Amino acid sequence: MNIASEMTPTMRLATLGIQLPQPWGSAGDSGPRVLGPGVTVYAEFVRVVGRRVMISGHLPLDESGAVSGPYGRVGAQVTLEQAQACAARAMLGIFASLTRELGTLDRIAAWVRLYGMVSATSEFRDYPSVINGASRLVYDVFGNDVGRHARVAIGIAGLPFDVPVEIEAEVELRD
Amino acid sequence: MNIASEMTPTMRLATLGIQLPQPWGSAGDSGPRVLGPGVTVYAEFVRVVGRRVMISGHLPLDESGAVSGPYGRVGAQVTLEQAQACAARAMLGIFASLTRELGTLDRIAAWVRLYGMVSATSEFRDYPSVINGASRLVYDVFGNDVGRHARVAIGIAGLPFDVPVEIEAEVELRD
Amino acid sequence: MNIASEMTPTMRLATLGIQLPQPWGSAGDSGPRVLGPGVTVYAEFVRVVGRRVMISGHLPLDESGAVSGPYGRVGAQVTLEQAQACAARAMLGIFASLTRELGTLDRIAAWVRLYGMVSATSEFRDYPSVINGASRLVYDVFGNDVGRHARVAIGIAGLPFDVPVEIEAEVELRD
Repeated sequence: MNIASEMTPTMRLATLGIQLPQPWGSAGDSGPRVLGPGVTVYAEFVRVVGRRVMISGHLPLDESGAVSGPYGRVGAQVTLEQAQACAARAMLGIFASLTRELGTLDRIAAWVRLYGMVSATSEFRDYPSVINGASRLVYDVFGNDVGRHARVAIGIAGLPFDVPVEIEAEVELRD
Repeated sequence: MNIASEMTPTMRLATLGIQLPQPWGSAGDSGPRVLGPGVTVYAEFVRVVGRRVMISGHLPLDESGAVSGPYGRVGAQVTLEQAQACAARAMLGIFASLTRELGTLDRIAAWVRLYGMVSATSEFRDYPSVINGASRLVYDVFGNDVGRHARVAIGIAGLPFDVPVEIEAEVELRD
Repeated sequence: MNIASEMTPTMRLATLGIQLPQPWGSAGDSGPRVLGPGVTVYAEFVRVVGRRVMISGHLPLDESGAVSGPYGRVGAQVTLEQAQACAARAMLGIFASLTRELGTLDRIAAWVRLYGMVSATSEFRDYPSVINGASRLVYDVFGNDVGRHARVAIGIAGLPFDVPVEIEAEVELRD
């Protein structure tokens, strides 16, 4: 654990055998970004203001950086285990967006906040366990000090493309 | 575009022929603010802490600064085009609240984050296109540098007064 | 009022006869926290980054620091008055978490933001009045200057354990 805590996030990703997906959409100097079929946004994937980094809501991506299934609600078309995997893939997409924007994840001094949204049936209430799929990945890759974060995990009425999970985040950079 | 980028937000508003509504409710030194018929809040429309400015969730306003329709859900009583106009009017209300609090929009160094909430039918999933109505206005008035922002655009179970759109925001001030 | 404004939050709590609950769950140096029966989270109750303090979504607690009822939706199983009391109890839980993390509430320089989530029937829209139960407590205990905050108060599709109210918050510390 002492050795692990001295590893950088980049080293931990390699040790864990985790490969990041292609980053989501195109991120030019300005103008709209295409999120998926027929959906264009006038917003950034990542916004850096001083040492603060705000990460837009990210959906589960496949390796090519495209929004991917399973689609539907947790408790109906999607199981808890699948939803946890979706949360992890949304977080890998966040890692990819941060890498594109910052050059390396190793510039991150602190995770601050995760806002985890779950589309589920009205019987399913275990949103925290779904979002753990993303949070555990943050602790695993950034360690128990840098990776610490406050969190909200709630049921949401609807998400774009009918995905079951979306995650927004904030991190802070080193000096 | 070079000329445009040297214009202040105040100049851009004038150039675009945009007139801000009266600001929402009364904002005294303390005490409750009246949002609309029968609804009083114990909170500020805008909270300034150092250079950070947090803007409370804003609903679509008419020119007099009153919450206004159309009411209902996108996909049922409200069309996509109407909802985009609602998002734009909510953002104009934010501009008005910021102007009341800060004196001028020209003190804003950076937009940071928009959190866009859409009340829609379960068939309607294109929340990003609705919130674009607000985001495009930010880029148009503040330019592609200052106006950049991270964003969440989601379906929400219910909004006050049954409006279809609500927008929360954060900006940062110049030194 | 002048006298009251010179009182610390700790003194105001005592004057108002308010006793904080036991803090929610255990907060060790790392590892999962247990929120309630069968629900474990990989996240902090409170995350301090510099002078910024992010408080995770808090549910209504009883005096022992356990999640407690009434359960269900506002407008059905839960009345407006009960929901306001739930919002106040969620805020007392936040006060308890902040006290555990910071040692004392008197280190807080400014409240910044409340994000209030209400689980309600589709007929109930008065989310602001529900969340006032939390906001009034912040103003009462921290005064009209420190206690000021921006706010969102919305209807949410579902909350953990089927509680009617959840509150996330951000505060800033003194130098």
